[in-house]
Amino acid sequence: MASAETPRTATLTDVARLAGVSIATASKAINGRAQVRAETRTRVLEAAEQLSFAPNAVARGLLQGRTGTVGLLTSDLEGRFSIPVLMGAEDAFGAGQVSVFLCDARGDAIREQHHIRALLSRRVEGLIVVGSRTDPRPPLTGELPVPVVYAYAPSENPADISITANNVEAGGLAIDHLVACGRRRIAHVTGDASYQAAQDRSRGAERAMREAGLELVGGRTFFGSWSEGWGRGVASMILDQYPDVDGFFCGSDQIARGVLDSLRESGRDVPRDISVIGFDNWAVLTTNTRPQLTSVDMNLEQVGRIAARRLFEAIEGRAASGIEELPCRIVTRESSVPVP
Amino acid sequence: MASAETPRTATLTDVARLAGVSIATASKAINGRAQVRAETRTRVLEAAEQLSFAPNAVARGLLQGRTGTVGLLTSDLEGRFSIPVLMGAEDAFGAGQVSVFLCDARGDAIREQHHIRALLSRRVEGLIVVGSRTDPRPPLTGELPVPVVYAYAPSENPADISITANNVEAGGLAIDHLVACGRRRIAHVTGDASYQAAQDRSRGAERAMREAGLELVGGRTFFGSWSEGWGRGVASMILDQYPDVDGFFCGSDQIARGVLDSLRESGRDVPRDISVIGFDNWAVLTTNTRPQLTSVDMNLEQVGRIAARRLFEAIEGRAASGIEELPCRIVTRESSVPVP
Repeated sequence: MASAETPRTATLTDVARLAGVSIATASKAINGRAQVRAETRTRVLEAAEQLSFAPNAVARGLLQGRTGTVGLLTSDLEGRFSIPVLMGAEDAFGAGQVSVFLCDARGDAIREQHHIRALLSRRVEGLIVVGSRTDPRPPLTGELPVPVVYAYAPSENPADISITANNVEAGGLAIDHLVACGRRRIAHVTGDASYQAAQDRSRGAERAMREAGLELVGGRTFFGSWSEGWGRGVASMILDQYPDVDGFFCGSDQIARGVLDSLRESGRDVPRDISVIGFDNWAVLTTNTRPQLTSVDMNLEQVGRIAARRLFEAIEGRAASGIEELPCRIVTRESSVPVP
Repeated sequence: MASAETPRTATLTDVARLAGVSIATASKAINGRAQVRAETRTRVLEAAEQLSFAPNAVARGLLQGRTGTVGLLTSDLEGRFSIPVLMGAEDAFGAGQVSVFLCDARGDAIREQHHIRALLSRRVEGLIVVGSRTDPRPPLTGELPVPVVYAYAPSENPADISITANNVEAGGLAIDHLVACGRRRIAHVTGDASYQAAQDRSRGAERAMREAGLELVGGRTFFGSWSEGWGRGVASMILDQYPDVDGFFCGSDQIARGVLDSLRESGRDVPRDISVIGFDNWAVLTTNTRPQLTSVDMNLEQVGRIAARRLFEAIEGRAASGIEELPCRIVTRESSVPVP
């Protein structure tokens, strides 16, 4: 980790603040554009000198309006979590200014190395690394000449910059929503216990239940697999053992779809008798279930946008490190409405 | 279109054939590698001279084993047809040799132009353009210094190289499979009639029915939308009007899932009473339906592999043009088995 004594490198923002101008104006002045008045330019250049501001070549290129390129390295494109992150990053960079080149390592370290070499040889200005699950991943190795930001899956190295969704908090949001719908006997059924995401959501759910003075049905989280089949099976088992269950918080929309099918076939009315909430807000599932499914959205586009912003700041030389956890949100549909 | 009189540019393959050596040996000889005997090198260079063989800089770079880069421009990454095409192209190029940089234009012509400029400025050796639907698309405009291959959606310009799936033939394959299962009263329910894919599959299905001496239930294809809701609704309507229906060919797996739900809720047994086949072979649907769904697979990875191969040939200067239609295949699951 960087020593706390190392003086922070001055950034364009610092220069602009000292000169009393906008960042855009400071940028124009430093890059010798014509649109800046002579006296403003002098003030900015004096501020830059005073702060020993030295934009690196890449930052200067970007400041000068040169088209930039950023690499987005995903490990699981088919897993569909990378795509909204990519979209958000592109939007933050601004279409027409920075292109995002996407490469898929398919969970293979050798392929990842190869893609990194290819992206660097094509002079990308920075890298965003998107994981396939929320478990921390090993950082990229070797001397990297450009900044790296980790998105969705944080880096194991706390000195790296990581942007991820707050899954613990999201578990609490889901429970709070069911409680607000008037539910008290809530079951939490989720996927594979080896996933950090399953553990985090479960932790948040259990905490929120305690805070509401309640206990999860069965006294625990039901871990299983991320599938409809598990959702159908576990729902039918719970209906059998705990027939007064009135709410299901499901760790994925696939599990929730299985739960909904099972409830319908058992003659239970959703949302009149039982409320159901899923996780992921995956349209192909949430809009096709009967009734349509309320779900937790991880705001992955926002994860991508913030990752892009942090990458830009790193390119400009502004230090940052650690894991930044962003909030999720509930998207309400027919499967959970307040009961009278 | 290129004049038929223009002599074809000689390729490395031509040189190797004339010199009586392998392509690898011809490549090594031309590039001055040490592993080739002097007399072999002489023979290859004489053949190259005789054929006026002049590899362009890009082809020479690739021949010399330099890491290459190809751009894949998709218009709809979320539409999930691009991803298997990308995978197939990467496999064909060979991991560790050529990197595929993916850019998503999101159906926006300005964004597409921007991505092309960015890819070209990063010296990609060629472009693969992947459409979001099978309708022909306008070719890329402007002077492109590298070859382009169109995949999934063909180019409107017949002089371009396009690789696509044969949807007409696929419609016939689906009907032939249902007929082989002993079905005679088959309905075809599909998506939006404005899609070329819907029209092509319908055409193939109607032709196959005629050839089997049969007629589609209702005397026509039921066009609607690519959704489960449409599948549920149209299946219930058909059961009502044509209660002796014994097979459903569905234009997508989403429609098929709706059909299966409707049949189950009407007390019809699949596959005993009725066989059902979907289209796309999308695992998230085919493996979660009850029973699991037989489906047509468009072999999109193969589309990607062939597109990559044709791009390489174009980089080497070998002329090709026109639409190449690749066969689809049936993936059989529980929803369609022969009836005794």
